[in-house]
Amino acid sequence: MNAEHITRLLRNVSDGSLSVEEAVHQLRVMPYEDLGFAKIDTHRALRAGFPEVIFCQGKTREQVAEIMLSLTNHNSKALATRATREMFDAVSAVVPDAVWHEAARLIVVDRADKPPDDGKYVMVLCAGTADMPVAEEAAVTAETMGSRVERAYDVGVAGLHRLLDRKDKLLGANVLVVIAGMEGALASVVGGLVNRPVIAVPTSIGYGASFEGIAPLLTMLNCCAAGVAVVNIDNGFGAGYFAHLVNK
Amino acid sequence: MNAEHITRLLRNVSDGSLSVEEAVHQLRVMPYEDLGFAKIDTHRALRAGFPEVIFCQGKTREQVAEIMLSLTNHNSKALATRATREMFDAVSAVVPDAVWHEAARLIVVDRADKPPDDGKYVMVLCAGTADMPVAEEAAVTAETMGSRVERAYDVGVAGLHRLLDRKDKLLGANVLVVIAGMEGALASVVGGLVNRPVIAVPTSIGYGASFEGIAPLLTMLNCCAAGVAVVNIDNGFGAGYFAHLVNK
Amino acid sequence: MNAEHITRLLRNVSDGSLSVEEAVHQLRVMPYEDLGFAKIDTHRALRAGFPEVIFCQGKTREQVAEIMLSLTNHNSKALATRATREMFDAVSAVVPDAVWHEAARLIVVDRADKPPDDGKYVMVLCAGTADMPVAEEAAVTAETMGSRVERAYDVGVAGLHRLLDRKDKLLGANVLVVIAGMEGALASVVGGLVNRPVIAVPTSIGYGASFEGIAPLLTMLNCCAAGVAVVNIDNGFGAGYFAHLVNK
Amino acid sequence: MNAEHITRLLRNVSDGSLSVEEAVHQLRVMPYEDLGFAKIDTHRALRAGFPEVIFCQGKTREQVAEIMLSLTNHNSKALATRATREMFDAVSAVVPDAVWHEAARLIVVDRADKPPDDGKYVMVLCAGTADMPVAEEAAVTAETMGSRVERAYDVGVAGLHRLLDRKDKLLGANVLVVIAGMEGALASVVGGLVNRPVIAVPTSIGYGASFEGIAPLLTMLNCCAAGVAVVNIDNGFGAGYFAHLVNK
Amino acid sequence: MNAEHITRLLRNVSDGSLSVEEAVHQLRVMPYEDLGFAKIDTHRALRAGFPEVIFCQGKTREQVAEIMLSLTNHNSKALATRATREMFDAVSAVVPDAVWHEAARLIVVDRADKPPDDGKYVMVLCAGTADMPVAEEAAVTAETMGSRVERAYDVGVAGLHRLLDRKDKLLGANVLVVIAGMEGALASVVGGLVNRPVIAVPTSIGYGASFEGIAPLLTMLNCCAAGVAVVNIDNGFGAGYFAHLVNK
Amino acid sequence: MNAEHITRLLRNVSDGSLSVEEAVHQLRVMPYEDLGFAKIDTHRALRAGFPEVIFCQGKTREQVAEIMLSLTNHNSKALATRATREMFDAVSAVVPDAVWHEAARLIVVDRADKPPDDGKYVMVLCAGTADMPVAEEAAVTAETMGSRVERAYDVGVAGLHRLLDRKDKLLGANVLVVIAGMEGALASVVGGLVNRPVIAVPTSIGYGASFEGIAPLLTMLNCCAAGVAVVNIDNGFGAGYFAHLVNK
Amino acid sequence: MNAEHITRLLRNVSDGSLSVEEAVHQLRVMPYEDLGFAKIDTHRALRAGFPEVIFCQGKTREQVAEIMLSLTNHNSKALATRATREMFDAVSAVVPDAVWHEAARLIVVDRADKPPDDGKYVMVLCAGTADMPVAEEAAVTAETMGSRVERAYDVGVAGLHRLLDRKDKLLGANVLVVIAGMEGALASVVGGLVNRPVIAVPTSIGYGASFEGIAPLLTMLNCCAAGVAVVNIDNGFGAGYFAHLVNK
Amino acid sequence: MNAEHITRLLRNVSDGSLSVEEAVHQLRVMPYEDLGFAKIDTHRALRAGFPEVIFCQGKTREQVAEIMLSLTNHNSKALATRATREMFDAVSAVVPDAVWHEAARLIVVDRADKPPDDGKYVMVLCAGTADMPVAEEAAVTAETMGSRVERAYDVGVAGLHRLLDRKDKLLGANVLVVIAGMEGALASVVGGLVNRPVIAVPTSIGYGASFEGIAPLLTMLNCCAAGVAVVNIDNGFGAGYFAHLVNK
Repeated sequence: MNAEHITRLLRNVSDGSLSVEEAVHQLRVMPYEDLGFAKIDTHRALRAGFPEVIFCQGKTREQVAEIMLSLTNHNSKALATRATREMFDAVSAVVPDAVWHEAARLIVVDRADKPPDDGKYVMVLCAGTADMPVAEEAAVTAETMGSRVERAYDVGVAGLHRLLDRKDKLLGANVLVVIAGMEGALASVVGGLVNRPVIAVPTSIGYGASFEGIAPLLTMLNCCAAGVAVVNIDNGFGAGYFAHLVNK
Repeated sequence: MNAEHITRLLRNVSDGSLSVEEAVHQLRVMPYEDLGFAKIDTHRALRAGFPEVIFCQGKTREQVAEIMLSLTNHNSKALATRATREMFDAVSAVVPDAVWHEAARLIVVDRADKPPDDGKYVMVLCAGTADMPVAEEAAVTAETMGSRVERAYDVGVAGLHRLLDRKDKLLGANVLVVIAGMEGALASVVGGLVNRPVIAVPTSIGYGASFEGIAPLLTMLNCCAAGVAVVNIDNGFGAGYFAHLVNK
Repeated sequence: MNAEHITRLLRNVSDGSLSVEEAVHQLRVMPYEDLGFAKIDTHRALRAGFPEVIFCQGKTREQVAEIMLSLTNHNSKALATRATREMFDAVSAVVPDAVWHEAARLIVVDRADKPPDDGKYVMVLCAGTADMPVAEEAAVTAETMGSRVERAYDVGVAGLHRLLDRKDKLLGANVLVVIAGMEGALASVVGGLVNRPVIAVPTSIGYGASFEGIAPLLTMLNCCAAGVAVVNIDNGFGAGYFAHLVNK
Repeated sequence: MNAEHITRLLRNVSDGSLSVEEAVHQLRVMPYEDLGFAKIDTHRALRAGFPEVIFCQGKTREQVAEIMLSLTNHNSKALATRATREMFDAVSAVVPDAVWHEAARLIVVDRADKPPDDGKYVMVLCAGTADMPVAEEAAVTAETMGSRVERAYDVGVAGLHRLLDRKDKLLGANVLVVIAGMEGALASVVGGLVNRPVIAVPTSIGYGASFEGIAPLLTMLNCCAAGVAVVNIDNGFGAGYFAHLVNK
Repeated sequence: MNAEHITRLLRNVSDGSLSVEEAVHQLRVMPYEDLGFAKIDTHRALRAGFPEVIFCQGKTREQVAEIMLSLTNHNSKALATRATREMFDAVSAVVPDAVWHEAARLIVVDRADKPPDDGKYVMVLCAGTADMPVAEEAAVTAETMGSRVERAYDVGVAGLHRLLDRKDKLLGANVLVVIAGMEGALASVVGGLVNRPVIAVPTSIGYGASFEGIAPLLTMLNCCAAGVAVVNIDNGFGAGYFAHLVNK
Repeated sequence: MNAEHITRLLRNVSDGSLSVEEAVHQLRVMPYEDLGFAKIDTHRALRAGFPEVIFCQGKTREQVAEIMLSLTNHNSKALATRATREMFDAVSAVVPDAVWHEAARLIVVDRADKPPDDGKYVMVLCAGTADMPVAEEAAVTAETMGSRVERAYDVGVAGLHRLLDRKDKLLGANVLVVIAGMEGALASVVGGLVNRPVIAVPTSIGYGASFEGIAPLLTMLNCCAAGVAVVNIDNGFGAGYFAHLVNK
Repeated sequence: MNAEHITRLLRNVSDGSLSVEEAVHQLRVMPYEDLGFAKIDTHRALRAGFPEVIFCQGKTREQVAEIMLSLTNHNSKALATRATREMFDAVSAVVPDAVWHEAARLIVVDRADKPPDDGKYVMVLCAGTADMPVAEEAAVTAETMGSRVERAYDVGVAGLHRLLDRKDKLLGANVLVVIAGMEGALASVVGGLVNRPVIAVPTSIGYGASFEGIAPLLTMLNCCAAGVAVVNIDNGFGAGYFAHLVNK
Repeated sequence: MNAEHITRLLRNVSDGSLSVEEAVHQLRVMPYEDLGFAKIDTHRALRAGFPEVIFCQGKTREQVAEIMLSLTNHNSKALATRATREMFDAVSAVVPDAVWHEAARLIVVDRADKPPDDGKYVMVLCAGTADMPVAEEAAVTAETMGSRVERAYDVGVAGLHRLLDRKDKLLGANVLVVIAGMEGALASVVGGLVNRPVIAVPTSIGYGASFEGIAPLLTMLNCCAAGVAVVNIDNGFGAGYFAHLVNK
């Protein structure tokens, strides 16, 4: 398309219907994306599987509904994070096939055909039940993008056998997302058990010296097992997105 | 081998040469790894492409040489990080085919055949020339593990055109490692341009309010572009290792 | 039981009713805990005196009631921390002998016989009346586990004589829990007076530069008297639990 | 006026109507500002274009209305920051020509003639839509002081082309205000593109490790592009004020 | 030049000597800067008055000398910051007209004609004599760029009269740079006295709770006087550069 | 009284009405304060002018009323800090001559004769009107203890002349309390003007990088003027108390 | 002795050889410890097993030698922590039976008979070889005090099987000391495996975001397993001392 | 003198020898201090007992010697803090009666007559022997200014009886300086014992989580005893200066 645009311009120069001076001017003011580069909004869906994701926090329910409607007009998938039930009701009124994921606080529209199972899956683990909203945000994000997801929740290191019981699932995963609050030691243990990339997500669960997630964040950054990288505190969406990029 | 060990034990039970009671005892005290689980030290090389990596900081040159010798007896590859020239000299005396990477501070032994090029590569970018040691640590680590690596150094956001000139290389990479000190904004910009996983490495380069790497660390954790995960400050090795896991 | 399981398997190999190959497979997939190790949930009560403790924060009152009911079906004791009055009401409906400790925010079920008094006791001290909820959480936890507890509240260092008046009780304790907010100096003073282990609990009581408990936390970690160890801010439960482990 | 005051006093000494002793006394107790120095409240409007700005946070609506009335009695312009709709209603009742800027949370009175356009303008950019209140505070402040302002909102670095599309506006600005939360990388990129002063404003927008604006604050302070200075977190007013001082 | 480049390409298309397809390709791979945008390295000198500045820290004296030689081949001015005497000696050997500013740790080459004095000047103030190196870095940077600079050193707020004695110089400045360590209060006081932009530079001078410059940094960011913006700790160069941009 | 107690005991030993053994026992169990040392609660009023001060935060209104009643039974003065209007109403019902200081959030009972004016006074200054509650807490505390207090509010350094206008009052004070939020520079300026002790109180007034009072706290601790000491953030009571101790 | 002192005084009163007034005076000035309380230095050895421990850091070798000589004159044991080889040489010259523990940096004198083995032991674990000096400080301290110690070093969670192989030793320990740097996850895992008190020691081993031990400190404070308490960073002595108090 | 200056000017106006216009001009440019205000350098000695104090850190020995010589030409006392032995040697060569205080790192010149003893004294206490340099800096500073000083060193709270033994000295002091590192609890205990102002000085003595003095700084700021104010970490001079201001 862009190439077409430029080609047409050059043809016009070639056939004399456009002066060289005017062509120079048009090339200079041409929007950047027309020059063939990078992650252009309208191209995004083609590459990553879905368009701009809506971060709902700080938006009104009307705004969320409007953007979702607009996105679903041009894309087969759409995702809204940190949504509320009220936002979903507003979206649902205009996009009837939108789905509400309560725990994950996500609104999902997915009209695409399910990709065939190639055996690869993302494994999402979390340490405590209180970490589940973040874990679900990661899992549903990866699923919406097209990855198969396996879950193992409440497998914190204080009861190590619960984790070790999942050894087959763990070892078979293509990429893993490990979510933990409090002291966040689960990422280190999992990172020491597997040989695939581990994405660690600290959560703000805890009290006192967990400092709203700083404690598990530092734990995960200092993870003594290689193969672990970290995203922002409570950023389940980012981890699920990253995991899908690795998995696809 | 482990399976063999257990099979032999069971055969002995089966043929009566070992009593059931003694077999129960042997199974209980058998080293954990013999039961087939996880990332066992002696299995590590088979999976990830090389054995335990030596973190040289805090070790004597004699210790480093000894461990390298031992590792190269059983493996075709070995890697020592944060090494000094003096450590390399000591290693070189006993492992003559060890190679010294000055900028990366790495000692590498690689007797394996080069894997065929499948077109996939890790792209390593850094913002300033002062970030180069960390960048080289990442690049050589990934190369030693078997990945093809492309480099683009000194492409910080203060001179955006230098980065944009590499657009083709950027867009073609399978996974990217972005290394930056000072304010670390490069990860955000690269994360916004590509649709593959980006591993961000903050460095301790900078002064004043960069606080030995805290500033770029926070920048990268808060990266507004999805698809970016972070490793510890100056942890080039960790980023290269993670990138190879994604790339292979 | 586990030993039985393995023995049976081996007997089957021994008598030919199970092939060696099948036995190898069964051993590999056998749940970890069957191999005789460690702190298995259902074993926990046998050792420590009570099962999993429920951390109520972030749970619904229905969830708390359900878990308490389940726990008390298999154990003679149960403990729920950071509970609310409403949670207690829900528990009380299904576990009529549950007891509510208002100040400690604990729900306790204790159907065990009281252990005979061996003269050993845990001493719980707190600096100000505002620290009392944390102190009671520590004291009731230790009591529920089976320790005798002596209390001395409002004995902060600004009125040193109030503490010194308790000298006999202090010197007779087997282990001490010292709870203080603001600047947390009480732990240092008590640590200097006694020769038994002191567990220090910083509280979030204070304002300004107490930073929600960081000030007393640092004070206690830097305690110039030997024999003092620290738990998380406001973690009365953890201190009471630790004290009982020392005392029993 | 001050000069007049002193001159009159000296004339009285000169003509004998005031004794030397009394004149010494009067000079000593004379208010500081009468001696000709500096930024005197009543002089402020003459120099900067408007008088004391009201910081509404922590004031009652009555207080705000009263001060606005008083200010507008002596000045052709007045500005109240961090105002609420209710405060505006109170002001409006006594100063009917006051104008309410919802997004900017500003109450503005401007009875001055618009200055002739000299082609110079302040450019205000922000990274995300959530940063808009701070951006509008900056923009309206600069406009009220008498600067022409151009706006470019939602041009964060995750979609670099959106920023680059504004290149002409960017390069033509006399001074730029760049507002960003999360990781704040926009200031670095803009600072690398232009050759005029850039005033960076970190915002408290973000979550987790953005720490209420600390992350973008550090990013901006460590900006690797020269020509960037920083104001306090969320301080749109300060940035707009500073920009006008540069622009006039 | 760039326009010429594109015009020539288009002419070739126009006269048939270049095919449309080949022209499309050439446009796509054309270096970004050729399209007329932004702050291109080789353009930098034309706009800001001098080329890339060399940050010497972490470079060898040979590297510094080589870059200085290269820069001075194409520019009439060059600047190297955080230099050592040894670096200057190396530069001096190949660039004989380089000048050494001991206190400012700057190497300067300036072959340009001095701009005519338009009366505008940058005022550089510092609180204590220990802040002088940072102050000189700011002053010499602004002078090298072409601004007139007035200095007032050792005018900290503990001896307020020393500052107030400079009132005429202060009020006459077009832009001010205020440098202070310890508690950094000087920026607030100066900001309250003048009506021109004030650039505040915290320094790492101090001890104990000045935390290597954090104390004055926070002071300056929270400055209650409007019209003050802040650069990084000890960043005299950045302040001088910013001040010149405002002043020119 | 204590001396009497001991004397009586010794007389009993002396006249044989008490055995030596019984006397040894009585001396050992005698409350610490009876041995003549230090700041005994019931002695406190005699020395400092009033008894234990009630810190109301975290207490019920009934508790506050009860303690005030008890204190005023044995003392001519009583003070309750961080009180609410509701607490005062409860106190007032049982202690009719209690006085409510709205701005200072203090409840005061003062039945003592006013001490004769010896010319010495405490000067309380604050930077902004928002700092007034803390300033009033300091002022009323010192007054209740018996000091004369002079006030100068809203004299922040952004309008230096307002402070300098009070020069006579400042220079005449025996001890000064300086209260400031935001950047807290007022303490440095006042400390540089006077030669008497200055007690600095940082307040949590401000936003962004003032970090709830950390910025002014650091400013005040690093004060370059000698003769300044600091109390906790918002601790007006502590400053007023300390000032009275110096003044009396 | 003290009782004797007081008894003698009272007898003198009783027999008239001491006046009541003089007795009152003597009681008032009598040293505090004579009244029977607390942890008096000369009593310390009787209770804890050895006297004041010497913290060598900041002392000269002469001072260390002198204090050791003095201590060993009155005690059968003595301990000096954070010592250097040079200090030991100086001590050795005057106390020939002093023993040097290189790794632990301890000087030990132990002339006491070894206590009979009661089967109870302290288990000291550390995560990496770099943590060994702190681990040895803990182990030798506990041994010198009279506890039996078992060691398990280099058992970090990245190679979980190495830890699990020690399961019998772990489960048999009476009290455990867990030492770890980097992310400190070992304490959580061990705390989840055992049912005895665990004393966690964060070390300053690590780099980047381990912040000289803050990362493992926070990890350990937030430990999700109950029964874990924490001492200061690198405080091996404190942990060994505490462990012995629990063990004895 | 100043008054004379102004009077003379006014007389000249009065008698016609100076025109009104010229007088206006002279008044405007007259140095600020001539108008009678505040703490003028040359007045300082008259009030506080000695002139500007030299902070030696960062100065050459020649500079220190020169300033000391200059100060002692106009004053009977002079003080240099944070000095080295080498600096003293340089001073001694030109000011032969300068005295060196090794522990306090102070150079003192004192030619004034000793003031008569009025019974009032400053008490300086420190917790450990390592805090002695700071304690001596405080003590010698106060002595040089003219206060009597009593010392009590090594009286930390871990051995409370050592402090309590000094009860008479403590209770008799007019003002107290309490110096402590590690956890800084001594200030709280002393503040609870006395009824005079306590100036607390945190020191950087300690390790791990004492964070170079932050731990005792927070302890002291949160001191639960009223009557305690704090100076910067290691600021013995500031404490001694403040104490003398209170004491005189």
